[in-house]
Amino acid sequence: MTMAPSASTAAPVLPSRGRLRPLGLDEVRITGGFWAERQSVNATASLGHIAHWLERAGWIRNFDLVAAGDVAGKRRGREFSDSEVYKFLEAMAWEIGRGGDPELEARYRAVVHRVARAQDADGYLNTMFGHAGQPPRWSDLRWGHELYCVGHLLQAAVARARTRPDADDGLVAIARRAADNVCETFGPDGVDGLCGHPEIEPALVEFARVTGEDRYLDQAALFVERRGHGRLGDVEWGREYFQDDIPVRQATVLRGHAVRANYLAAGAVDVAAETDDPGLLKAVRDQWRTAVARRTYLTGGQGSRHQDEAFGEDWVLPPDRAYSETCAGVASVMLAWRLLLACGDSGYADLIERTLFNVVSTSPAADGRSFFYTNTLHRREPGTVPDADRPSIRAAAAQRAPWYEVSCCPTNVARTLASLTAYVATGDDEGLQIHQYVPGTITDRRVDGPGRRITVATGYPVDGEIRVRIDGADDRPWMLALRVPGWAEQGATLTVDGQTRPVRPGYATERRVWRAGDEVVLSLPMAPRLTYPDPRIDAVRGCVAVERGPLVYAVESVDVPGGESVDDLRVDPSRPPTMAGDRVVLHCVRIDPSDRDWPYHGTADEAERDPVEVPLVAYHAWANRGPSTMRVWIPTSGELPGRGDNRQLPGHEVVPVTFPPDSVT
Amino acid sequence: MTMAPSASTAAPVLPSRGRLRPLGLDEVRITGGFWAERQSVNATASLGHIAHWLERAGWIRNFDLVAAGDVAGKRRGREFSDSEVYKFLEAMAWEIGRGGDPELEARYRAVVHRVARAQDADGYLNTMFGHAGQPPRWSDLRWGHELYCVGHLLQAAVARARTRPDADDGLVAIARRAADNVCETFGPDGVDGLCGHPEIEPALVEFARVTGEDRYLDQAALFVERRGHGRLGDVEWGREYFQDDIPVRQATVLRGHAVRANYLAAGAVDVAAETDDPGLLKAVRDQWRTAVARRTYLTGGQGSRHQDEAFGEDWVLPPDRAYSETCAGVASVMLAWRLLLACGDSGYADLIERTLFNVVSTSPAADGRSFFYTNTLHRREPGTVPDADRPSIRAAAAQRAPWYEVSCCPTNVARTLASLTAYVATGDDEGLQIHQYVPGTITDRRVDGPGRRITVATGYPVDGEIRVRIDGADDRPWMLALRVPGWAEQGATLTVDGQTRPVRPGYATERRVWRAGDEVVLSLPMAPRLTYPDPRIDAVRGCVAVERGPLVYAVESVDVPGGESVDDLRVDPSRPPTMAGDRVVLHCVRIDPSDRDWPYHGTADEAERDPVEVPLVAYHAWANRGPSTMRVWIPTSGELPGRGDNRQLPGHEVVPVTFPPDSVT
Repeated sequence: MTMAPSASTAAPVLPSRGRLRPLGLDEVRITGGFWAERQSVNATASLGHIAHWLERAGWIRNFDLVAAGDVAGKRRGREFSDSEVYKFLEAMAWEIGRGGDPELEARYRAVVHRVARAQDADGYLNTMFGHAGQPPRWSDLRWGHELYCVGHLLQAAVARARTRPDADDGLVAIARRAADNVCETFGPDGVDGLCGHPEIEPALVEFARVTGEDRYLDQAALFVERRGHGRLGDVEWGREYFQDDIPVRQATVLRGHAVRANYLAAGAVDVAAETDDPGLLKAVRDQWRTAVARRTYLTGGQGSRHQDEAFGEDWVLPPDRAYSETCAGVASVMLAWRLLLACGDSGYADLIERTLFNVVSTSPAADGRSFFYTNTLHRREPGTVPDADRPSIRAAAAQRAPWYEVSCCPTNVARTLASLTAYVATGDDEGLQIHQYVPGTITDRRVDGPGRRITVATGYPVDGEIRVRIDGADDRPWMLALRVPGWAEQGATLTVDGQTRPVRPGYATERRVWRAGDEVVLSLPMAPRLTYPDPRIDAVRGCVAVERGPLVYAVESVDVPGGESVDDLRVDPSRPPTMAGDRVVLHCVRIDPSDRDWPYHGTADEAERDPVEVPLVAYHAWANRGPSTMRVWIPTSGELPGRGDNRQLPGHEVVPVTFPPDSVT
Repeated sequence: MTMAPSASTAAPVLPSRGRLRPLGLDEVRITGGFWAERQSVNATASLGHIAHWLERAGWIRNFDLVAAGDVAGKRRGREFSDSEVYKFLEAMAWEIGRGGDPELEARYRAVVHRVARAQDADGYLNTMFGHAGQPPRWSDLRWGHELYCVGHLLQAAVARARTRPDADDGLVAIARRAADNVCETFGPDGVDGLCGHPEIEPALVEFARVTGEDRYLDQAALFVERRGHGRLGDVEWGREYFQDDIPVRQATVLRGHAVRANYLAAGAVDVAAETDDPGLLKAVRDQWRTAVARRTYLTGGQGSRHQDEAFGEDWVLPPDRAYSETCAGVASVMLAWRLLLACGDSGYADLIERTLFNVVSTSPAADGRSFFYTNTLHRREPGTVPDADRPSIRAAAAQRAPWYEVSCCPTNVARTLASLTAYVATGDDEGLQIHQYVPGTITDRRVDGPGRRITVATGYPVDGEIRVRIDGADDRPWMLALRVPGWAEQGATLTVDGQTRPVRPGYATERRVWRAGDEVVLSLPMAPRLTYPDPRIDAVRGCVAVERGPLVYAVESVDVPGGESVDDLRVDPSRPPTMAGDRVVLHCVRIDPSDRDWPYHGTADEAERDPVEVPLVAYHAWANRGPSTMRVWIPTSGELPGRGDNRQLPGHEVVPVTFPPDSVT
């Protein structure tokens, strides 16, 4: 095929084919609510915070050192620190695209200028390799992250090209030279290698979409096909760490390092979309499906192993040793979004919603100036608030830290929040699909005429009413599709023209000739609910969690009278959680375990004491009130209803959740 | 104080004061049964296997290279590989002390000869540092393991000195020069440093006991006191990894790397014993007590973290990610034995028994030619049998492997089995104490006269009858003390002179004037039993394990009809395990979990299917029949008796196990 630059809209992913077309920052506006607030904190606090730390850590200065020919021995930071600068550029580019101020544009241009001066004449760009006194270029493909860094450079350039296509800052040209250098070096007649950390793959495809150049797509496809044959050699954690154990087309589940796994899979979906390769697409879909069914935390978090930041085996999801890296959440959103565009299945948007609310939004503190790197589901010891003046070790912080030795997460959150608007809605020939509920406006510009324009009003996720008003008038009928989340198994309704009907998880649709002022109301059930794990998840056997709408809740010690531990609480599952004002309250008892010299005995011992009402906290909001302990999964007291004989909770019906067929119905 | 060489007996630990005196290889004989078989396999198979791999890996050749002045660039193995050679020497020394054959003596001498030639003129001995083309001596105290290696050299020399005190092989002299070099380098006026891996501490104390030289004890005490002040700096896993976070006297629990923690604590007990320092002893005892009560697996295994081979926080004991390194088991036995000698508390001997049967004896395969490095309590995927011709990565092998890149465990098991005889019994002024039950003979040579000689006849742990016959005649009364294990909460009896009385956990004692031919019979209850975990151990909530006598049992997939997984089994806890012939059988049902796209739901779902009778396997014997899955902790079906309302199992009484006061009663 020959690529044509894809229809321009300001979105991170613009496939030239697929079930749904994304609507970008120029077509969707978020005007208030949960995500507008986070985008505002990101713009006004986090971006400046990141700039401060990138300077302080010397990671931008590394580019100056290369430009000055004086980098050897003076470079600071890990081998992938260049990528943080590029992710910062990408975040700024999206933020400028959302309407950022001139100061941000100036900051952006200043960083681009410094990056530009470090690029070698042939396009090679990296501050760690290839200059006097440094290891040679491409001399450590396994750990060196050179291609990974180029990938993030390309993604930054894509963001700029799509938000300010006429800008003269030069980032796209820098990226083009770097991408050309990669293609020359690693093309079919070049080095038969690949990067230890996937990322270049989706980046090259998107850059091909921006530039219309087939060669970048071809190179991405080559990198995807090269993986899985052991080219990266053996490491202590096994070849699956790099997904180099099994070719992408043959693998059956996401595995190994969770960020790497999702980035690679995202690139494979991109390649499949552009090369019209249903076999490759199906392989990744099946991997995703199994990973979501068996290797994903309730929060949407992925990766249960501290040792190698990796997926464990099926059902190994310990809450206390959950790694659930913030970047794996970002990567999972990237993959699910590509699969949603390709296939149109609401399950992908369900996972995106869950991951955005419970992983991506959990990472930054309320003030946007500290971040979780890992997102545990159980904190046993309160720990201390990390030093605000010192980088933390990645998984060691008991609370959010301002910066990390490996500081991939803050910039990944920043670029995701700045581009979040592009994940809200899509269009197709039939109409509009709304995947995430935010107050704002949505327009499909690629449809002629006054047509497909709507305004969404909602207090979601605080309340469950989503009110869609049609703003455009069109005498041709079109279909409005509203996602009913998988968690809304019962009680969701759609009201159109005064008629209310129950709707089930999937997409609730209404096709008609819409008039300006017409209104559709989706009502989602917002009572807090108890959630039980699959019996194969050993680590949370006998526990329940509480959810409300898309939010996972937690018990945090600062809310519990008496004591810094939350481990002695037990839930009576016959008493569902209730609302007290705007807080979810759980009815618990405390147990009083005996301290003994040996913890294993001939009888179970769990004497219960006083009942206690515990106000819960939305998981994303925990750890904003000083050191604390926390749990998402809380053990049940007494008999576990439904255990053993499949008895049901009063008022609940066993409704298996299955994903709807791969289409918007 | 001035040390005098301790009363000579062929035992690894000979404190000059303490509650109990060890009886060595010259005083105890194991003549049959479980441990005699393992000692025989160790002598006839494992030692030769280790010799083969040490040569093949080049780890003995490293000494030749140093001797030839040609080591730079040619040395093979990790920074601690010298220690494997020394542990091999120690194992051979004990085995020769048990009556090894001339061939073993020749092998031993050949290795000593090669080691001797690598020693520098000033006593420094290491193949990784300090020679032309290598990093300087002591240039990497944090990770270099130089002092650690000297420690194992000293322990090998101690074994030789105590088993062949008149031998002319020279190992003791080599060790003395190396120890002197350490004292000169790291003494009060020398380098203010310490080793990243404790081991030199207990070794120097024992070498002081062998030589009567105070300076080695003083140096050990100095190393103990230096730790805990951050001298080793910060690493990703925190200072607790090296126990360098808190001074030994102030710490409240064993923490960090589990082998390091136990070796350090063992050295601290040794120092406390020789310097008569009850404060230091109490600190370690309290650390041990908390670690055993909250951080130890049912098997006695310690260390729940793969990432840093470390203890986790209290109650974090996941069975599937159990690290439970074999060497941590060896180290735990070393520590508990020292505390037993110092304090005389049966709880220490209980942990030794549990750890020997369920960790140390689990590591080697039945043929003694492959070993577990980690000892998981739950294997989910059968994996493959490691290549017999290739070293494995330490924690990666699903089955026992012949050798590891980090191969500390095989030699540690070998030296422990070869010296095991010394952990069976002790003496004091009052009489004899038997801590571990083996068929054999026990004599206290340090008592004048024909006195304290006994023969033990038992099929333990297959059966629970321990028959002790008095062989010596003495007209003075003395006390025979037999350990009643903590697990024998009910039903243990002692029969003396035809009179049977119930006995409780602790030491059952009988003091009288014994006649040759008198017999005492301890009868321990051997019905298989269900064991429940403390409710704070989240990872095994709702599960039970099966034990019989000192053995932990497991369900292994090769014993379960139909299917390679054991994860769908559920135990009805109202049906205790039974015996079928010599096998323990557990009555289970299978569950039939539904595969769904998302594993978290509004109802518990655990429909049960057909009942199944599952023969169990002793945990130490699992994985000897090809690839398999396994679990120690098995979920219960239906209601969990005793859960929530503290109901009891039929026929069981709630008897808290507490350790007896610190004395033999």
